[in-house]
Amino acid sequence: MSKVHNFSAGPGILPQEVLKQASEACINFDNLNLSLLEISHRSKNYEKVMDEARSIVKELFEVGDEYEVLYLGGGASLQFAMVPYNLLRENGTAAYVNTGVWASKAIKEAKLIGNTKVIASSEDKNFNYIPKGYEIPGDADYLHITSNNTIYGTQMKSFPKCNIPLVCDMSSDIFSRKVNAKDFTLIYAGAQKNMGPAGSTMVMVKKDALGKTGRKMLSMLDYQVHIKGGSMYNTPPVFPIYVTLLTLQWLKKNGGISWIEKINQQKADLLYSEIDRNPLFIGTTAVEDRSNMNACFLLKDASLEPEFDKLWKEANISGIRGHRDVGGYRASLYNALPLESVQVLVDVMKQFESKKG
Amino acid sequence: MSKVHNFSAGPGILPQEVLKQASEACINFDNLNLSLLEISHRSKNYEKVMDEARSIVKELFEVGDEYEVLYLGGGASLQFAMVPYNLLRENGTAAYVNTGVWASKAIKEAKLIGNTKVIASSEDKNFNYIPKGYEIPGDADYLHITSNNTIYGTQMKSFPKCNIPLVCDMSSDIFSRKVNAKDFTLIYAGAQKNMGPAGSTMVMVKKDALGKTGRKMLSMLDYQVHIKGGSMYNTPPVFPIYVTLLTLQWLKKNGGISWIEKINQQKADLLYSEIDRNPLFIGTTAVEDRSNMNACFLLKDASLEPEFDKLWKEANISGIRGHRDVGGYRASLYNALPLESVQVLVDVMKQFESKKG
Repeated sequence: MSKVHNFSAGPGILPQEVLKQASEACINFDNLNLSLLEISHRSKNYEKVMDEARSIVKELFEVGDEYEVLYLGGGASLQFAMVPYNLLRENGTAAYVNTGVWASKAIKEAKLIGNTKVIASSEDKNFNYIPKGYEIPGDADYLHITSNNTIYGTQMKSFPKCNIPLVCDMSSDIFSRKVNAKDFTLIYAGAQKNMGPAGSTMVMVKKDALGKTGRKMLSMLDYQVHIKGGSMYNTPPVFPIYVTLLTLQWLKKNGGISWIEKINQQKADLLYSEIDRNPLFIGTTAVEDRSNMNACFLLKDASLEPEFDKLWKEANISGIRGHRDVGGYRASLYNALPLESVQVLVDVMKQFESKKG
Repeated sequence: MSKVHNFSAGPGILPQEVLKQASEACINFDNLNLSLLEISHRSKNYEKVMDEARSIVKELFEVGDEYEVLYLGGGASLQFAMVPYNLLRENGTAAYVNTGVWASKAIKEAKLIGNTKVIASSEDKNFNYIPKGYEIPGDADYLHITSNNTIYGTQMKSFPKCNIPLVCDMSSDIFSRKVNAKDFTLIYAGAQKNMGPAGSTMVMVKKDALGKTGRKMLSMLDYQVHIKGGSMYNTPPVFPIYVTLLTLQWLKKNGGISWIEKINQQKADLLYSEIDRNPLFIGTTAVEDRSNMNACFLLKDASLEPEFDKLWKEANISGIRGHRDVGGYRASLYNALPLESVQVLVDVMKQFESKKG
């Protein structure tokens, strides 16, 4: 059976060699003759995994020891609460940019914790663009942004310049392109798109930003507790973190972010060119804000969908139905998706044009 | 290479066939020609896993639809906070029995949330027994107990009778023996001992106990939010939950809890008999409270440890060094540990006796 072209929006495609290594570790990890699933997280062998999984993030982001890296359970959704819990002072204000469902959820949790101001939003056009030119309050405790919006296919091509701490949910485009990580006080990302499988969330935070809220804190929601525990205050999600390490090692070994950024650009250019050229299709977002990770597009004539669906399914393509909030199609182009899979999709689009033409 | 006898206290041993199935799912899950690590948790194939993983818990516990089952990230440590957050009214009181480090941590989090009373404790003797005969306040919102104490090797052989909601951390002995689950309002367990790998925590809760605190709740800490989302309010720890399902299917297929309870009793009897018979060793806990899951024992002459360590390592035994709070040895006898592994350990103890005798 030929390989499936996996355009899933997340959990998303992982490199084949990573899946093979993950499979092997389920049987025999590190030549222990034990499965990774049944050894102590306090074993030397696993402590090495955790150490490397933490340090490789700092390496890829090119930051120093002023930052700490954690892998936590609970998904990015738990970070929606932990960020304000750890950074929003009891009488302070947090500023948020609302670029979609996930940003809205982050705002909802922040409001439960303290004063929260939405300083820009693209809700007026179903989040099909990235707001620009808004003013950032200089006295807010932090500004929270979402770098890429999986559902709508929009991506911040540059980040707001501000002199308050910048916090970013990078769940769906982390390590897909060069960013100046030192501009951020906190970056978090659910692993299940560009980093690894579901089950762990990476948090990279500047240490000197913590401990200032005056809040009495629950241990599991306190970044400082997790930092003190070396990201093992309690049993971590052992296997998801290991597979994340494998995925980041794959990225580093192949040339790092500058390598993948180029490929991701090629994939996006190839697909968006076809969306724009092919008279049957139309993109759904503002052209300048198009995401290189999630390309959303519609058939101009929605009644053709069943016929088009049949065609791409025959080509072994999987996971390109759009999110219910946008409809149509969404092709996710995460790091591990090969250029050839995008070519297969583009060929199917061309083939469909000939057929209908 | 011969198989390791894995006595790890947790993450602990899993059945060989489960490890094999887990390994296969990393490459090709459910004949999709895709890895379980790279498919959507909203796919039909995974929704089936989640449904079964939830229903099999109710089946094994023999409870009906008045209970809901969730799989959450963050470990049992997050439940230390979520339990009082969801059950402790703003002016109410929670009652706790302190039987060790984990119970103490649960108490610490509850105190951050509301009035918390420790009604019994075995701290006076380094938690080497289970407190009995204490009075349970009839007006408390709930009583929290820990059924098995991994570090010290103590286990509640019966549960307190009370007419307030009973909450139990069963992380280290869940599904190891028959319990009357209907006596409990909430049972939770980090999966990584008897249920599966690290990364997900099972919570079974009576629905009618929820929504009574008067507290405005953060979404990710609210059981009702997770129930409404079918335990997929956000992306769940996909792979750990799947392996948990495999482990519970293994248990059910082989005869369920009555089957494993008998084997667990045989394993415990075999090991404790040797601890009591062998003049070189001594158990560390009150005999009537000895855990069938974690047997803690010392060499009467601690200076012999290096020599004994050499012997069991040669026998391919792994993970029996005791926790630093107790010292000596701890053999964890979780469901997946075969009787023959215990026999190997007992043989090594006998062999050591001959050598020293």
